Amino acid sequence: MDALFISNIKNVRYLTGFTGSSAFILITPDRGLFFTDFRYMEQAETEVKGWEIGIEKGKRINFLSNLMRKLAIKKLGFETSISYDFYVLLTKIKIMPIALKNPVENYRKVKENSEIDEIRKAISRAEEAFLKIKPRIKIGVRERQIALELEERLKRAGCNAIPFEIIVTSGKNSSMPHAKPTDKKLGSGDFVIIDWGGEANGYYSDMTRTFLLVGEHLAEKKRIYDIVNKAREEAIKSVREGIRANEIDGVARNIIKNAGLGDYFGHATGHGVGLEVHEEPRIAWTNRERIAEGMVFTIEPGVYKPNLGGVRIEDMIILKKGGPTLLTTLSRELEIIR
Amino acid sequence: MDALFISNIKNVRYLTGFTGSSAFILITPDRGLFFTDFRYMEQAETEVKGWEIGIEKGKRINFLSNLMRKLAIKKLGFETSISYDFYVLLTKIKIMPIALKNPVENYRKVKENSEIDEIRKAISRAEEAFLKIKPRIKIGVRERQIALELEERLKRAGCNAIPFEIIVTSGKNSSMPHAKPTDKKLGSGDFVIIDWGGEANGYYSDMTRTFLLVGEHLAEKKRIYDIVNKAREEAIKSVREGIRANEIDGVARNIIKNAGLGDYFGHATGHGVGLEVHEEPRIAWTNRERIAEGMVFTIEPGVYKPNLGGVRIEDMIILKKGGPTLLTTLSRELEIIR
Repeated sequence: MDALFISNIKNVRYLTGFTGSSAFILITPDRGLFFTDFRYMEQAETEVKGWEIGIEKGKRINFLSNLMRKLAIKKLGFETSISYDFYVLLTKIKIMPIALKNPVENYRKVKENSEIDEIRKAISRAEEAFLKIKPRIKIGVRERQIALELEERLKRAGCNAIPFEIIVTSGKNSSMPHAKPTDKKLGSGDFVIIDWGGEANGYYSDMTRTFLLVGEHLAEKKRIYDIVNKAREEAIKSVREGIRANEIDGVARNIIKNAGLGDYFGHATGHGVGLEVHEEPRIAWTNRERIAEGMVFTIEPGVYKPNLGGVRIEDMIILKKGGPTLLTTLSRELEIIR
Repeated sequence: MDALFISNIKNVRYLTGFTGSSAFILITPDRGLFFTDFRYMEQAETEVKGWEIGIEKGKRINFLSNLMRKLAIKKLGFETSISYDFYVLLTKIKIMPIALKNPVENYRKVKENSEIDEIRKAISRAEEAFLKIKPRIKIGVRERQIALELEERLKRAGCNAIPFEIIVTSGKNSSMPHAKPTDKKLGSGDFVIIDWGGEANGYYSDMTRTFLLVGEHLAEKKRIYDIVNKAREEAIKSVREGIRANEIDGVARNIIKNAGLGDYFGHATGHGVGLEVHEEPRIAWTNRERIAEGMVFTIEPGVYKPNLGGVRIEDMIILKKGGPTLLTTLSRELEIIR
């Protein structure tokens, strides 16, 4: 390979510090070249240090083709996450394209100390914002209103962006794991799932808490909550250097299955969090990769029972030398709100 | 082709009404099949009418492979916007994949009346929110503060999402066309560019206005503003059935070039807006496609002069039978704020 072409913008950011929305980099054995278009030229000069900065003009494939000729590049490594469209264009210029799966993501999975600091900040902003709106979780308040106020608090806490639209879902709605906030008012006996995240310097956080409003079928609801919480706790305890992602998933899944609720837990147990709110490693039954020190990910089992409602409890953890360390700090005990 | 596989989630939404984040559809000559995963099952049953709804389980490629066998599909059309990764997987199952460029986007470009209504709503929410915070554009207020307050107003106006992080950029910062809001306070003589959008039922709006705070070099700044505004106006006037996108771009670009400012207008003149805030048609010098009745797009020339600042004025228009119609309504006259 004569050079590596990276255009996934999060990967570009990871390697260069550039926070704009359009750029690519080219890495050769002895040079690091960064290109962005006119709009971001000044921004790049401020943010990108240690790279040769150039301006990208015209269609990307033509620009790249000229660059390949000028630098005498024949074999070009590309990220398999590019579109099929762009791949076809790459096959039409005078290079041999070489597919590389997750060439940067494989580094991004393991966080450096400076990244962990940003993630901790993203978590503390999210928790601080949440605690401000927590008293609003009560009968009669609309889901949408809580989501709106939480978002405002996140922004005021310093988040420049939020990683995803906040989920506030209650009662029957909560049996849809990713339902959007509606105009429904929180009602007696409702589970209320709140799933939200914060941001700090481009790094995200992601967490979920479930509350119960006092009402009918309390015993059954408490039982479900306790099972989900147990699944969360045991899955976290299982995390150690070298364990496979699917084994962690299995720990949570078995607890829920053994309680007879296996049909109601259809999503994966967790995912990495960093510059993207969903990134590697996926803590899923389909992923046999081994967990390593420095990886940051969520553990978020859930149970969603039609007509009864849902529970999800989501923490973020990091695997350190001594074992898993919780990053999120909000209580996971069931809180019954009257 | 035996079937068409659509997984671009905006295209799925366009065709089925599904508002979740993961699904795909399969269209055969006599059936319309919709699949989503467990998380969105209940939501799909509410939103998706006239399609056979199924649950997607396990890895998508395996699921799809089984489906192909069951339905005896041999030739499968796919969107060229899929990732190279997924394309490779498609080549490994027992089908012949057939690449289709923008199979749904080509329909999405031309808006139906119900879509135009949503876009108009997204515009009026954005304008209403803006007018509430407009008095905050004055010397001493921080860029970030204005962005924050505008976002809150957008949410309160009913927008469930905003299409992109709001741009508020002033003075020297404004010479970077897409700079993020900073803690800089608006100062005397600053151009202040505000670029924001609203949402209604999944449809977006996008608009930009530039204000001038009273200060030095007023004559030069007024001249630049007037040229950009003239470019905007003439480009809009040029829009008619059958004109090529690059011709519209050329109208704006020539006015700016003839004023000696060609080096400072590096981006395209506009883009389509709908379920995505940047979609087809691109009003760019590289796009020779012809404009048709019912297309909705922005016209947004700009001039960005290092050390002096930038001006961008962005309207949304629709081409109707009688000619171009402005959708945005906020004044484009230069407002000098003291």
